[in-house]
Amino acid sequence: MKVLAIDTSNHPMSVALVEDDQLLATTTLNMVRNHSIYLMPTIDRLCQLVKWSPTDLDRVVVAQGPGSYTGIRIAATTAKVLADTLNIDLVGVSSLEVVARNVLPMTTAIIVPFFDTRRGNVFAGAYQWQDGQLTSQIADQHLAMSDLLTQLAKIDQQVIMVGHVTKKLADQFEKLPQNVSLAPRAYGIPSTYQLALVGVDQPAVKEIDPFVPHYLRITEAEANWQKLHPGVTRKNYVREV
Amino acid sequence: MKVLAIDTSNHPMSVALVEDDQLLATTTLNMVRNHSIYLMPTIDRLCQLVKWSPTDLDRVVVAQGPGSYTGIRIAATTAKVLADTLNIDLVGVSSLEVVARNVLPMTTAIIVPFFDTRRGNVFAGAYQWQDGQLTSQIADQHLAMSDLLTQLAKIDQQVIMVGHVTKKLADQFEKLPQNVSLAPRAYGIPSTYQLALVGVDQPAVKEIDPFVPHYLRITEAEANWQKLHPGVTRKNYVREV
Repeated sequence: MKVLAIDTSNHPMSVALVEDDQLLATTTLNMVRNHSIYLMPTIDRLCQLVKWSPTDLDRVVVAQGPGSYTGIRIAATTAKVLADTLNIDLVGVSSLEVVARNVLPMTTAIIVPFFDTRRGNVFAGAYQWQDGQLTSQIADQHLAMSDLLTQLAKIDQQVIMVGHVTKKLADQFEKLPQNVSLAPRAYGIPSTYQLALVGVDQPAVKEIDPFVPHYLRITEAEANWQKLHPGVTRKNYVREV
Repeated sequence: MKVLAIDTSNHPMSVALVEDDQLLATTTLNMVRNHSIYLMPTIDRLCQLVKWSPTDLDRVVVAQGPGSYTGIRIAATTAKVLADTLNIDLVGVSSLEVVARNVLPMTTAIIVPFFDTRRGNVFAGAYQWQDGQLTSQIADQHLAMSDLLTQLAKIDQQVIMVGHVTKKLADQFEKLPQNVSLAPRAYGIPSTYQLALVGVDQPAVKEIDPFVPHYLRITEAEANWQKLHPGVTRKNYVREV
């Protein structure tokens, strides 16, 4: 199975071409958040190197979020357009799970990947390897970093946090709970090789059209709309507005 | 510090551009062993993306071996030519150590990276994280896979092997000693981001000219020469012949 994996959830933009369980080519750019400019040329370049035409692809696997609003929209849109036009499988995987998989399956600790979302908040989830399977222990969510640390301190197990500690978060990492440690920065870069491997094992989505990013918080547009229309609730913002 | 990191020791070819401790761009190709064709264009392409000219570089860090004869020669030669012509630092790092660093510093187990060298032999070393520093426990060496497993079985600690199990090695991995486990294949791909980070902390070589790959076995040319000249020993084959 020929797989294209895409992750533009956060600052790093990563693309991989994987055949069955073998990595063929991958590029990660981590300079600026200009993913919309670099994504398609990077996919094109890697396909040329591997000598694949787009019609050779069997499946697109995308990091579906959480992450930056724009980042996960770019990835989801690109993946949907490719899957639809090429008539191939589409699979979405948690962007946090991808980072958690940088930690080896021999690890018994709870793995907590996180992304800074500013104002002292993070996206975070808790995962654990059990018999070679990475299982979700606490669902991905958007919460205050201080609340996350309070929760983690109560866990009666070792916890490994994996992510990029931005300047704004740095203060809170100075005094971690005793059972919590932070992996060095290099382990927080998502691997789209790992993303592809997870995606190969998952069922493809049944319909491409309703596939949307996992924002895990309301969108900016939705927040603005709510400000203008206080008290009005809508079930599906995108379809209704 | 602007760092170019290069690893072509084995099947994967990887290049990274790293500034201080931040990854800017990296590409890994793992299709065919045509590293001599792809290495310079990949470096060129990444420099263009990051908007660096070669003269911006401060340091070249290269995976110095062990690995395939041709692979480590390509990396060492490219790194030497760049360091010499640009008049910048050159640092060599063990190719096995680079793979060992895919395992997080929270791991207490002995980490054994390995590369298949055919005929039942491997390059392997043993490493362990101690207070955040990856320390060598058994020096990198060339040995029979069966001898390696016998040695590892005697260690009174958990051992994690990291590498790519080729078809020829597969039989020997069917019955691993009780204290030994094998990391999934994805963790055996070297990270040139990690390579750059190690290289930033090491002193540069004093003279570029005598820098040679770490073969850890005699070169093919040397083996052939010895067959033709039985009983004659030479201290520095390259310089003397």
